[in-house]
Amino acid sequence: MKKALGIDIGGTKISYAIVDEEGNFLNEVHKIKTPKTKDEIFDTLACIVSEAENDVDFIAIATAGAVNNENTKVIGSTANLPSGYKDIDFSLLSNKKVFIENDANSAAYAEYKLGAAKGYNNSITLTLGTGVGSGIIINGKLLKGKSGAAGEMHFMLERNEKRLCTCGSYDCFEAYASGNGLRKTAVEIFNDSSITTYEVIEKAKNNDKNALLALEVWQKDITLGILGLNNIFDTDCFVLSGSMEQFVDTKKIEDFVNLKTVTTKTKVFHAKMGNYSGMIGVVLLGFDLLN
Amino acid sequence: MKKALGIDIGGTKISYAIVDEEGNFLNEVHKIKTPKTKDEIFDTLACIVSEAENDVDFIAIATAGAVNNENTKVIGSTANLPSGYKDIDFSLLSNKKVFIENDANSAAYAEYKLGAAKGYNNSITLTLGTGVGSGIIINGKLLKGKSGAAGEMHFMLERNEKRLCTCGSYDCFEAYASGNGLRKTAVEIFNDSSITTYEVIEKAKNNDKNALLALEVWQKDITLGILGLNNIFDTDCFVLSGSMEQFVDTKKIEDFVNLKTVTTKTKVFHAKMGNYSGMIGVVLLGFDLLN
Repeated sequence: MKKALGIDIGGTKISYAIVDEEGNFLNEVHKIKTPKTKDEIFDTLACIVSEAENDVDFIAIATAGAVNNENTKVIGSTANLPSGYKDIDFSLLSNKKVFIENDANSAAYAEYKLGAAKGYNNSITLTLGTGVGSGIIINGKLLKGKSGAAGEMHFMLERNEKRLCTCGSYDCFEAYASGNGLRKTAVEIFNDSSITTYEVIEKAKNNDKNALLALEVWQKDITLGILGLNNIFDTDCFVLSGSMEQFVDTKKIEDFVNLKTVTTKTKVFHAKMGNYSGMIGVVLLGFDLLN
Repeated sequence: MKKALGIDIGGTKISYAIVDEEGNFLNEVHKIKTPKTKDEIFDTLACIVSEAENDVDFIAIATAGAVNNENTKVIGSTANLPSGYKDIDFSLLSNKKVFIENDANSAAYAEYKLGAAKGYNNSITLTLGTGVGSGIIINGKLLKGKSGAAGEMHFMLERNEKRLCTCGSYDCFEAYASGNGLRKTAVEIFNDSSITTYEVIEKAKNNDKNALLALEVWQKDITLGILGLNNIFDTDCFVLSGSMEQFVDTKKIEDFVNLKTVTTKTKVFHAKMGNYSGMIGVVLLGFDLLN
């Protein structure tokens, strides 16, 4: 069976393993801390690749940042990685083909091929973490847009500049639906700028009224975003992944969206592919697009 | 050259003409008032079709309402047409193939093939009239979604139930960006529930401060929606069509969106295909999909 070296480059760690064309790990997943400069990142990747490249058909890299339509280059800057990261020429890492894709797109592809969205040709996977990532699948293909950057969940949920988003605009979906969005909602409700996302979750476990309200408002904001996306895309299903998705009631979201949608009913699922969905997804996508 | 009978069924009138595969009219466009019941609509269409069907390769109908992925059936109800309209079996109109598509999707396809978005593989056409219609083109194909209903511009611009939308949800883009949205914005600014869209436009021509402010707020709301859509779709261009688009400054919208987008720069154009874009578009789409 064919296989690839899968690598996931995140802001805090780089994970890698050899993955076959059915998405199975052929060795243990290795993790190392993400270096602080782009040159160190390149050298680290070169070392990882040189150990494995003779055993695999190609190298597949899931990365933060938008990736071009040729799957060769990062085209958008990413706040969590060092400056100049997007100038790395990944093709220099190996004599074998190096295939790259955005990590949220890769995770969405893994959910589509093997996970919660398996069997559905149209799905939107929202990765709810510190921020919000997404991957949109239409008729079995990733929505990439003209340059490859499509799928940014920066549409506005307010009109009057209430909450600054990391992107420089105000009131994007990400500024409400992310873990950081939950924190900001809690700051407003508690009237305490020092409260953290972790504290909100802990207080909610102890039935603190304000914390429960913050989670309720946060979930409602996620719900409004999903309703809008279902009206735009008329998709088969939504998959919620990432560190924050465990705090979401998918059934409640699905019921509200299906009550209000002007297209047709959709489904809302918890993700199934776990922490390595990006690594698995980029390998599967590489096999589908390179063959 | 091949040709089709193009028909556009709107809430107030039915327009029709014979159109060739390059989008040229081969006779004058005829218009009649839309009858009040679904049976009368069917009989009227049957009469129109019987006169022309021997001269054409197929019948192409642009209609209000969502149309299924097989282009045979209206699947969503439409407020402007009689009850039961969606149960009309259009295939019974002719022994020739009857091809139908949503009117806003058809208009978008006309702009893509022959109009303002010609030469761009990715575009979003927003029809700004009493409501907002849209058609989304991705890699040269209409976005239809799982059932055919995709492209509804009912994503939320506010979170706290400020303005009821025609769809039953609150604060959809349509409730702000449409002609009716302009009226509602003006009602708030003038604090006068009797003001009409027409009056706002007339007052603005006379430099009435409140009317100009209403138009400015309305255009800003359209801009925020387009910014969000460009972040989701990373599209080549937006085309604004419909009766209200003449009051929009496309350059201002484009500049703001390109300053703030997190994907890549886009373009914002006025439509070029005129009042019969739906009729022309559904003929062109029929030729592309039936061949």
